[in-house]
Amino acid sequence: MLIAKHQNIIDNAVKANHERTFYSQYPEHPKAYGEAAPTQGETAYKSLLNQPFSRLKQKVVENWYGEEVSPYTLEPLGISYPIISTEELVKAGKRAGARWAQLSVADRAGILTETLEKIQHHFFEIAHATMHTTGQSFMMSFQASGPHANDRALEAIAMGYQQLQHFPGEQTWEKPMGKISVKLQKTFRPVPKGLGLVIGCSTFPVWNSLPGIYADLITGNPVIVKPHAKAVLPIAIVVAAIQQVLEENGQDPYTCQLAADSTGHPITKALCEHPDVHLIDYTGGSAFGNYVESLVSQGKTVFTEKAGVNSVIIDSVQDIDAVMQNLAFSVSLYSGQMCTAPQNFFIPETGVKTPNGTLSFDEVAKKFTDAITALVNNPKMGAGTLGAVQNETTLQRAREAAKLGGKVLLEGAPVNSEEFAGARTWSPVVVEVSADDSAIFQQELFGPVVLLVKTKNTDDSIRLARQMASSHGAITCGAYATDEAVMDKIADAMNSVFTPVSFNFTGFIWVNQHAAFSDFHVTGGNPAGNASFTTPEFIDKRFVWVGNRTYVS
Amino acid sequence: MLIAKHQNIIDNAVKANHERTFYSQYPEHPKAYGEAAPTQGETAYKSLLNQPFSRLKQKVVENWYGEEVSPYTLEPLGISYPIISTEELVKAGKRAGARWAQLSVADRAGILTETLEKIQHHFFEIAHATMHTTGQSFMMSFQASGPHANDRALEAIAMGYQQLQHFPGEQTWEKPMGKISVKLQKTFRPVPKGLGLVIGCSTFPVWNSLPGIYADLITGNPVIVKPHAKAVLPIAIVVAAIQQVLEENGQDPYTCQLAADSTGHPITKALCEHPDVHLIDYTGGSAFGNYVESLVSQGKTVFTEKAGVNSVIIDSVQDIDAVMQNLAFSVSLYSGQMCTAPQNFFIPETGVKTPNGTLSFDEVAKKFTDAITALVNNPKMGAGTLGAVQNETTLQRAREAAKLGGKVLLEGAPVNSEEFAGARTWSPVVVEVSADDSAIFQQELFGPVVLLVKTKNTDDSIRLARQMASSHGAITCGAYATDEAVMDKIADAMNSVFTPVSFNFTGFIWVNQHAAFSDFHVTGGNPAGNASFTTPEFIDKRFVWVGNRTYVS
Repeated sequence: MLIAKHQNIIDNAVKANHERTFYSQYPEHPKAYGEAAPTQGETAYKSLLNQPFSRLKQKVVENWYGEEVSPYTLEPLGISYPIISTEELVKAGKRAGARWAQLSVADRAGILTETLEKIQHHFFEIAHATMHTTGQSFMMSFQASGPHANDRALEAIAMGYQQLQHFPGEQTWEKPMGKISVKLQKTFRPVPKGLGLVIGCSTFPVWNSLPGIYADLITGNPVIVKPHAKAVLPIAIVVAAIQQVLEENGQDPYTCQLAADSTGHPITKALCEHPDVHLIDYTGGSAFGNYVESLVSQGKTVFTEKAGVNSVIIDSVQDIDAVMQNLAFSVSLYSGQMCTAPQNFFIPETGVKTPNGTLSFDEVAKKFTDAITALVNNPKMGAGTLGAVQNETTLQRAREAAKLGGKVLLEGAPVNSEEFAGARTWSPVVVEVSADDSAIFQQELFGPVVLLVKTKNTDDSIRLARQMASSHGAITCGAYATDEAVMDKIADAMNSVFTPVSFNFTGFIWVNQHAAFSDFHVTGGNPAGNASFTTPEFIDKRFVWVGNRTYVS
Repeated sequence: MLIAKHQNIIDNAVKANHERTFYSQYPEHPKAYGEAAPTQGETAYKSLLNQPFSRLKQKVVENWYGEEVSPYTLEPLGISYPIISTEELVKAGKRAGARWAQLSVADRAGILTETLEKIQHHFFEIAHATMHTTGQSFMMSFQASGPHANDRALEAIAMGYQQLQHFPGEQTWEKPMGKISVKLQKTFRPVPKGLGLVIGCSTFPVWNSLPGIYADLITGNPVIVKPHAKAVLPIAIVVAAIQQVLEENGQDPYTCQLAADSTGHPITKALCEHPDVHLIDYTGGSAFGNYVESLVSQGKTVFTEKAGVNSVIIDSVQDIDAVMQNLAFSVSLYSGQMCTAPQNFFIPETGVKTPNGTLSFDEVAKKFTDAITALVNNPKMGAGTLGAVQNETTLQRAREAAKLGGKVLLEGAPVNSEEFAGARTWSPVVVEVSADDSAIFQQELFGPVVLLVKTKNTDDSIRLARQMASSHGAITCGAYATDEAVMDKIADAMNSVFTPVSFNFTGFIWVNQHAAFSDFHVTGGNPAGNASFTTPEFIDKRFVWVGNRTYVS
């Protein structure tokens, strides 16, 4: 059985989940995958272009369709995917699920870990697919959709492996009653809730979908994967690999299905509202996310990651240049299209304390915009850090940032990419706003838009950052403070609205990054989402403990 | 610290929670509590009658009021309770909660276990209070509101103690990056969601409320306890004991408050909808329970136990008389006013197989009604098993069972109680209905009403029992079958609608009973309720994991 083959990987992952020290099963360095892998991956990717995607095992197809366009070339990928009716998807999923649920959690864990080993061989192919759908740089595409996503999947497998064995499968219960006793034989079954649906987004089509997919599967539920119509290929490659491993191991490949659709004929709501769909994982905008959350009233169990406004609170620093380089990278990375990217920088009008005296608000702002400019214009760094802008709406938002109100401190502009001359790019726009302009900074401005908010003092900064997180959601909060009491105050305030704080990040670590096996991604406690990768709750809500008892004597 | 004093109790409870063998911290035999305890308890109870209940620490009182009436004497208890405004309750709870949240889970576990040790000294007093509000017999009052409730509370404390320490409080994370590494210091905080509300019922005012109260408290949330206006005293004694221990240990007694109200001026909805109330535990009827569940859309986390229709499937038996005695007791116990009591008995028209041949439906029905009659008329057993009927509505329902349709096989009647001549009593009514009469048996007929449903065969019985559980909810299912394949079929069908099955119970164990530390009470997976005493989820939904990170080097 595959569980024997992978027991060591699973045991290490369970341990890492608990301890939360650094752990990674899949190295993030491309070089770890051998010399031949990059070229093979690129070739494999190119061979998929301009034709139907034929790797899936799903055979009852109504139509073939695709509408992906590379943000780098602005050309269509020309790949079409099977369009399958909702009823067919649900029927096939339910049938497969009845069989999948019979497996022990150990057997499921073995097969699912095998799928990750299989996916690993597609990392470079997936990287190119991610790059040309999301606009991420090659390196981010490789890491986020490859090893980092696989690690998040393994994290979910391991959490499920542990949680489903939290109670014994069988137990004898004997109650002493004076001279006699009563004996019962008991079984405890983690019964899967039923068919799951995972709704993907256009910017992180693999990383944000794998936790839900694997959480559904490890708990015994079949899953339908509904990608964003503009970012299908990366997750299609993953689903095809999962189906292949399922089939190779005598399982029904329909246990994990791809449900492609189109912008013109979306099927997400029909799937969400189907009475046989019991679990929904969603990543994307808040409007649709709020709709998904409302389905709880129809008995659905839902897991959401929506939008938020992330803050950085700057009180005092050890080394202002190191801080500004770090923050410049954070706002430039993938052109601010990460749900973890900081947007609102709260800086006191009284300035920022440093070991060499206080820097004024304007001096800090200048150092920040200079750091961004230096990064953007660095020929070895700029284009590679920014990547491309996924869609026109995001580009338009950045172009029009000057109209928001406030004072533009740094204009955005297209960034020259040597490799892709026509790429859809835009460098970060920096706008100064007053603390009274909450109408401006309380909205998520997804993309390369940064707001510097001039506050009265750090207490005012904390109050505003807390209010934003509480009312509009937040996934991250960066903070710079050299005084422990100030750090405690920031942590207590932000934690009270269920927002984690990253203190004094400089060097090769950024607030945008959440590491599998250590950092929870989204807390689930504020409007940015109701779920967290991967807490016990992320697993436990997908099944129900049911205990049977048989009288023995 | 109290944690040191009680570490052994907590460790044993954590172990028992996991292993799910027989375990009990508080003996269910009254004799275990010493010779003097019964008389002292009765005296203490009597001293509370006909005056204001003055033990609570809550001081800002608008009014004093009480409307409890003994189902045994039909006389008012004459006890009044402080009526406190919603705003005052919420304000005091929030203030207390801010302090309570600062304690470590170990410190909270120590203090909360101490409260159970204190409550233990009130077991007999609480028993009399339970008897004269709910109508339970003395023995059931003692066990359900005393040791069994305390065990369920300890179960919640232990589950919280473990779940809040699932991840380390602090950890160093060091990521190797070739020649360098990045080091972060991380903290993981289980942040309480906020003020809790526990809404009690009139039949099990302590047993059904303690899990929610202690789950809120162990996870760092303050709690407001809103009893049923007709069953305040038992839980008032408990809350007063908790407040006393809190105060003795330097904590704010308002961490756990009593919120009494009246039938004429109920405050439950105002409390439920208060924006500062974040957690709601509810036990009671489905109509109000569905309202409570709808508050999820307002961001509340809710835990419900509502109504269901419990089934017994009879296919084949080893010893028909032993089975019928067992079932007669199950339907008579507390006059069917347990949420776990069976209501619908599915029996094939082809009869029930026994080692001595097949008994016809009518023969089985006759043995069942005979067993009930024998129990009810047994002077040593009858009145003590049935107890009294809590309220007039339940009595009326039983009185009018003949009007339901179907064929009355056994009439109900008042049962003579030697101790309380005027007690509100009614013996079980047994009505035969056809499998087509689902309009009759799909409703919960709370109280001493039993329906024998004549089905085509056992497959038909399973189908109907499954359908009832799926559509109307079920907390228990009894089943009698001697063939393993039939048992498996029943288990799979009922478990698929998240209903546990108790097989072949005879002797001193009944389907109505759910033992702490071993049986989950309600699965949370069907319309009978969305929560389960005490799964990890029952705890984990009350707090949010938040991780902070500080750059080290």
